[in-house]
Amino acid sequence: MNDSLLLQKGQAILALQPFSVLIGAELHALSTGHCEMQVPITEKILQQYGFVHGGVVSYAADNALTYAGGTALGGAVVTSEFKINYVRPAIGERLIARAQAVYAGSSQAVCRCDVFVMVNGEEKLCAVAQGTIARLPGKETAK
Amino acid sequence: MNDSLLLQKGQAILALQPFSVLIGAELHALSTGHCEMQVPITEKILQQYGFVHGGVVSYAADNALTYAGGTALGGAVVTSEFKINYVRPAIGERLIARAQAVYAGSSQAVCRCDVFVMVNGEEKLCAVAQGTIARLPGKETAK
Amino acid sequence: MNDSLLLQKGQAILALQPFSVLIGAELHALSTGHCEMQVPITEKILQQYGFVHGGVVSYAADNALTYAGGTALGGAVVTSEFKINYVRPAIGERLIARAQAVYAGSSQAVCRCDVFVMVNGEEKLCAVAQGTIARLPGKETAK
Amino acid sequence: MNDSLLLQKGQAILALQPFSVLIGAELHALSTGHCEMQVPITEKILQQYGFVHGGVVSYAADNALTYAGGTALGGAVVTSEFKINYVRPAIGERLIARAQAVYAGSSQAVCRCDVFVMVNGEEKLCAVAQGTIARLPGKETAK
Repeated sequence: MNDSLLLQKGQAILALQPFSVLIGAELHALSTGHCEMQVPITEKILQQYGFVHGGVVSYAADNALTYAGGTALGGAVVTSEFKINYVRPAIGERLIARAQAVYAGSSQAVCRCDVFVMVNGEEKLCAVAQGTIARLPGKETAK
Repeated sequence: MNDSLLLQKGQAILALQPFSVLIGAELHALSTGHCEMQVPITEKILQQYGFVHGGVVSYAADNALTYAGGTALGGAVVTSEFKINYVRPAIGERLIARAQAVYAGSSQAVCRCDVFVMVNGEEKLCAVAQGTIARLPGKETAK
Repeated sequence: MNDSLLLQKGQAILALQPFSVLIGAELHALSTGHCEMQVPITEKILQQYGFVHGGVVSYAADNALTYAGGTALGGAVVTSEFKINYVRPAIGERLIARAQAVYAGSSQAVCRCDVFVMVNGEEKLCAVAQGTIARLPGKETAK
Repeated sequence: MNDSLLLQKGQAILALQPFSVLIGAELHALSTGHCEMQVPITEKILQQYGFVHGGVVSYAADNALTYAGGTALGGAVVTSEFKINYVRPAIGERLIARAQAVYAGSSQAVCRCDVFVMVNGEEKLCAVAQGTIARLPGKETAK
C-alpha cells in the first residue's frame, strides 16, 4: 500500500474512533513504521492551570505509537503498554506527536514517540514515550 | 484536612479541568495517598472496536495517580511520568481507577494504580499503572 | 507441580544463570504467580556511594518478575519489558524482591514487584517495578 | 570541562563502582548529554540459554542513562526511574549502550538509550530504554 493510501486508511480509522473525534485529533502523516498526529489546542482539552491535560498528551502519544506499530506490523493491533515522561507543560496552538517503530517482530513492535507543542510557529518538546504494540490474535494480514 | 473536605476540594479541582468534564470523570473517594476515580462509559469515549479508547484508560490512571500523589505530598503537583499496561479491553458500564502512593518523599511520590471495568456489577482488571508525581516548585503547602 | 518442587526447579534454573551466581542471588519462595528472591549485600554489588548499584536492584526486580510470570504462564518465558522506580538508596544486609502476577493471559503475564532492603532486621521499600513476561514461542508447556 | 577530561572523570567514577568492575563495564565516550558504555560479553554475564542476562542489559542501559543525564545536569545524580524494552536476545561479542539526554531542566533530565549487541562486527539493536535522572539534593556543582 502506498503512503497516500495508507494515510487515507489511517484517517478513516481515526474517524471511527468517537474519542479521537471528541478530542479533535488529526492524522497528518503515515507510512510504514512512522506516524504524525496533531491535536489543535482548544479550551476543552485543558486542565485547571490552562495547560493541555496530561491525559490528552498521553492519548496523542498512545495513538501515534499505535499507528507507527500498526503500519510496521501490518494488520489490526492494540497498544500493550507504554511509558511517558512529561518534560514541559503543553501551552500553545497544537500538539504534534511523531512516532516511529524502532523494532518490529512477527507479533509485536516497539515504538517511540516525541510530543511537541507548537508555540508561535516553533516546536517545543513536551513529552517522550516508548511502548509495545501487539498484533491482535487472529487478525494477521498482509501489509 | 479530613477526608470529607479533601474529597470536596478534589472534586472542585476536577470541575476546573475542562478535559475531565468533557470525559465525564467523577472523583469518588480521596484520602491521603489514596484516590478512586470513575468514568461512566458512554459512546463518546470509545474507539473503533467499541472498547473504551486506551487514551481514556490512561487518562483515568494518570489522574488517579496525580490525586493519590498530590494528597500524599500535600500541595500542587504534576505527573512527571507514568507507565501503563493494558491487560483486557475495557467493555462495560464504567471505569474505576484506584491509586495509592507507595512512597512519598519531600518532593516526589511514587504511586500505583489499578483500573477496573465494571461489567454487570462485577469489576474486571483492565490496566495497571505506576508513576511519579512531583510537587510543583514554589507551591509547597501544609497538608 | 507443588510449590516445593516448583521452588527446587526454580533454584536449579537460577544455578544455571552464571550472572545470578556471580551476584549471589537466592530464590527463597516460588509458587504460581508469586516469587521471592534475595541478594545478600556484599561489597562487590555496590556503587561509588556505598549503596547497592541500581543495576543490581533492577536485576533483582527483573528476575523476580520473570519467575512470577513464568510460574503464572507455565513454561519457558522471557521478560519483554519492565519499568522500575527507585525510591530509597539500598543500604543494608540484603535485598528482598517480591513479585506477583496481576494478570496472566495465554501468551503474556503482567507482573509487579516490590524490592526491599533489610536493615537491622527491618524491611524498607527501595524500589517498585512493573513489567510484561512473555512465553517463548514454541515452548508452551503444561503447568 | 572538555570531553577528554569528562571521559577521564567518568572512567574514574566507573572504577569506583565495584559492581561495574565486577561486570567489566567500560566507558568509551562521554560528552554533555551523551554517553557510550560497553560490556565485553563473557560467560559470567550470561543466563541459562546462553544470552546475556537481562539484568546486565538493564545495568548497561541504566548506567548509560545516568552518565548522559549526569553530564547534562552537571553534578552528582541518581537514576530515579527507567523503563526498558528488550527486543532481541543479546548474543555476540560485546554490548554497546548509547544514551542521550532529550531534556534537561534544573533538577532532572530525561534520557533515552539504545543497547546494541556487536555480532561479527555488526551492531544489532537488543533493547531500548527511557528514564529520569535526578540531581542529588545539595550536590549541585558547576559543569
